[in-house]
Amino acid sequence: MFEARLLRSSILKKVLEAIKDLLTQATFDCDDNGIQLQAMDNSHVSLVSLTLRADGFDKYRCDRNISMGMNLGSMSKILKCAGDKDTVTIKAQDNADNVTFVFESPNQEKVSDYEMKLMNLDLEHLGIPETEYSCTIRMPSSEFARICRDLSQFGESMVISCTKEGVKFSATGDIGSANVKLAQTASIDKEEEAVVIEMEEPVTLTFACQYLNYFTKATSLSPQVQLSMSADVPLVVEYRIPDIGHIRYYLAPKIEEEDS
Amino acid sequence: MFEARLLRSSILKKVLEAIKDLLTQATFDCDDNGIQLQAMDNSHVSLVSLTLRADGFDKYRCDRNISMGMNLGSMSKILKCAGDKDTVTIKAQDNADNVTFVFESPNQEKVSDYEMKLMNLDLEHLGIPETEYSCTIRMPSSEFARICRDLSQFGESMVISCTKEGVKFSATGDIGSANVKLAQTASIDKEEEAVVIEMEEPVTLTFACQYLNYFTKATSLSPQVQLSMSADVPLVVEYRIPDIGHIRYYLAPKIEEEDS
Amino acid sequence: MFEARLLRSSILKKVLEAIKDLLTQATFDCDDNGIQLQAMDNSHVSLVSLTLRADGFDKYRCDRNISMGMNLGSMSKILKCAGDKDTVTIKAQDNADNVTFVFESPNQEKVSDYEMKLMNLDLEHLGIPETEYSCTIRMPSSEFARICRDLSQFGESMVISCTKEGVKFSATGDIGSANVKLAQTASIDKEEEAVVIEMEEPVTLTFACQYLNYFTKATSLSPQVQLSMSADVPLVVEYRIPDIGHIRYYLAPKIEEEDS
Repeated sequence: MFEARLLRSSILKKVLEAIKDLLTQATFDCDDNGIQLQAMDNSHVSLVSLTLRADGFDKYRCDRNISMGMNLGSMSKILKCAGDKDTVTIKAQDNADNVTFVFESPNQEKVSDYEMKLMNLDLEHLGIPETEYSCTIRMPSSEFARICRDLSQFGESMVISCTKEGVKFSATGDIGSANVKLAQTASIDKEEEAVVIEMEEPVTLTFACQYLNYFTKATSLSPQVQLSMSADVPLVVEYRIPDIGHIRYYLAPKIEEEDS
Repeated sequence: MFEARLLRSSILKKVLEAIKDLLTQATFDCDDNGIQLQAMDNSHVSLVSLTLRADGFDKYRCDRNISMGMNLGSMSKILKCAGDKDTVTIKAQDNADNVTFVFESPNQEKVSDYEMKLMNLDLEHLGIPETEYSCTIRMPSSEFARICRDLSQFGESMVISCTKEGVKFSATGDIGSANVKLAQTASIDKEEEAVVIEMEEPVTLTFACQYLNYFTKATSLSPQVQLSMSADVPLVVEYRIPDIGHIRYYLAPKIEEEDS
Repeated sequence: MFEARLLRSSILKKVLEAIKDLLTQATFDCDDNGIQLQAMDNSHVSLVSLTLRADGFDKYRCDRNISMGMNLGSMSKILKCAGDKDTVTIKAQDNADNVTFVFESPNQEKVSDYEMKLMNLDLEHLGIPETEYSCTIRMPSSEFARICRDLSQFGESMVISCTKEGVKFSATGDIGSANVKLAQTASIDKEEEAVVIEMEEPVTLTFACQYLNYFTKATSLSPQVQLSMSADVPLVVEYRIPDIGHIRYYLAPKIEEEDS
């Protein structure tokens, strides 16, 4: 028997929004520690890693480890049927071939259950090596989303360049060229609005805008995003989900000819 | 001479929204008592019945009974030109072949008149028998709209099942199956949010989601909707329009093979 | 060296919105007095004239007169990257073949620069004769936008008829006929909501709705619009941009057979 309950369905709705454009289907691996999802996106370019810790749920029971392959389009349709204040419970029998989502309104007077068939998906266990990064940048997630959206109008790829002073995002294309520079926040009044850079050595890398824009679908999950970069290794874009876990996106840099 | 005046044009705008997707044209029958409209929808599956009582208008004059056939698409375009606070007056001469809508702004400084040609429509007078229903359900109209929208993602038809305890809406399809259960409201704080069931005997009927979704276009007319059901007779979905009348939709149940 | 700085980028954004659907490209003529733009629309029916005075900018420097041909679609894309509270600075070197837009956030922690190539456009200097008009009508710009939008549903052209009592807008088409009458405001409480008519002699002229609807894209620039009309000369639709200038649209009346 697997059962996981969240008082606020909105977290799960936002998680689905954050991955459903990248993945059409995925396996949710559930064990005592919580729920894990790791998958390459549909075009096998980027990698998504989601962790929802057992202690972040309002109720969590997992008698036997269970891997549930789900069609994320269908799951998203089901979650859209939950009211924002509804409690959501995910339920599955051991060895079952379906999963049930139960939504309960705050006053208990509306109870909905949605049953969905599970899929048999090839498991691809992806080892993600722990890495020390040359630079990590924390910044408001909405600012990062805005920059990715703006710059993708100018070119298909975007250069992220990090120094002690700040971080620069650049793109060039038919219209012209664009540079957006963010300075480190001098004095931090509001944690959520801060730009904080930790740097061992400066890094400049180029990424496909399209994937960065997919990642920013997670913006509503967290007020801050963290970018981790080192030369020649994938960028990590991490959104912490308050009290329950995180979602991380990995994207390899483009190899480009030097042009300056 | 026919003349009917409403201080708030918004009621008439909402009435049009509630019928224009079901009916492309319809006859408004006007007499001393008010305005009546009865028509089968374009595909002759459901029936719409609208009553606007004379005493609900701020001014009402109908010297001779008059039947005005109108293109509802055109009428809707005209009503969209009225400001929400405008007064609307509908005018027609006896035996005229056009009708005039006059909109006046609250300060009288803007006056608009729109003249529209009338149509000759075949009159189909539909006798709707008064029926005693086995179940009537009153519930928030927005909740009913939400359930119809949610469940229509899962299947083309929807089962409505009413017992003393509550009402259940169900749908099944490729994605899986969905059940939404509403309990009777235990203590009614707000009349508008109550779910109230009156039941002679339990009823379970199946309906086409598409038509229910058309009916819920009337949601903005009333905070509550009433569903009336008996075995083998059409469902009635009724929205009361405060102080002036009501709109009722009739939809025959689907005959389905038993599967449980 | 040319440099012009505005504390609020929103004005420039709105100016672009007001012209980019009419013009795909245009020349901004800059001299000591400010920035001028004059151009026929893409289909050479109407004329746009924009004036931004030097004294309306927060900083303005123009060492040598400079004419900058810009693709307005690209310029609009760039301006959409500015936050509404950002400061915008337009910069160009003398004889340069590109222009730079710099956006600075209020706290200076985000600085963006966008460089765009300039275009060589044929200069068409259009003499617009100063004219005394038989009627000028000042009215709320949102009301004018609303009327143009409403009436364009009824016909391709719109008659504007001005007398001492007020102004009437009319259209006729398949649906029927529409007349919107505005009276002069009796007592002016709020300047911005007033309808004020100055009339030497009554004028009735017919215009293409499509172009009037293009002009009303400037609505957000000013709470009031001024229409100036005389028989047989182009209508002038003017929006004053507070503290910095104005945008004027010119549209020749349609010549129509008399039908009353």
